[in-house]
Amino acid sequence: MSAVVTSVAPMLSVREGARAVEFYKAAFGAVETYRVESPDGDVVSRLSIEGAEFWVADESPEHANFSPATLNGCTTRIILNIAEPAAVVARAIAAGAREVHPVRDEEYGWRQGRIVDPFGHHWEIGHEL
Amino acid sequence: MSAVVTSVAPMLSVREGARAVEFYKAAFGAVETYRVESPDGDVVSRLSIEGAEFWVADESPEHANFSPATLNGCTTRIILNIAEPAAVVARAIAAGAREVHPVRDEEYGWRQGRIVDPFGHHWEIGHEL
Repeated sequence: MSAVVTSVAPMLSVREGARAVEFYKAAFGAVETYRVESPDGDVVSRLSIEGAEFWVADESPEHANFSPATLNGCTTRIILNIAEPAAVVARAIAAGAREVHPVRDEEYGWRQGRIVDPFGHHWEIGHEL
Repeated sequence: MSAVVTSVAPMLSVREGARAVEFYKAAFGAVETYRVESPDGDVVSRLSIEGAEFWVADESPEHANFSPATLNGCTTRIILNIAEPAAVVARAIAAGAREVHPVRDEEYGWRQGRIVDPFGHHWEIGHEL
């Protein structure tokens, strides 16, 4: 085993995981680097946006993994730190996301917009000023 | 502004944010690198585990940020990729987490354990084999 580099990556629980992966590819230019698909079509997918990793998996309530659709809300926002947030948000909306607020310069020192994706996860997209 | 390095970081919604920050420090050796505290004591905190970043914030249902306690479940697991997962899990349990399953070698190629923290967020802790 090579040396472990400490990292923290969210694994988003969704319904329709395979379709969610396609959304994240279209919205954020994500690349899938690993995928396991079960016989019933459920997926676990590892994705990279320019090297920044996250995971997507079909929900499995029996393992305490719930989609936002099931809980009617989500418990984690995803902070996507990226150049050109307005372009990223526009692309995500074109792919099916809904804007919560547009990209703007916030008093806390970030240029940032917020969207909710078609699977119910919220993304704050931008960068520090 | 310096060049933006793309990153993805989860922001965990919790009740009792200030207490949650103390838990993550004790459990994972997290260091707080930024904190905003509102007059009523709510916090937004940026934390780093050996350079791996995540955020913690008091829930604000009016902004669609829900804690696991409010939704009775969570919609994102956190993958903490780290050396010596058994030691990390033991430390987290000593700090108040509950073990979901112990660290073990999984057929999908990771040595990994799972805990749920006192604020309801689930962590998969380990590394690829």
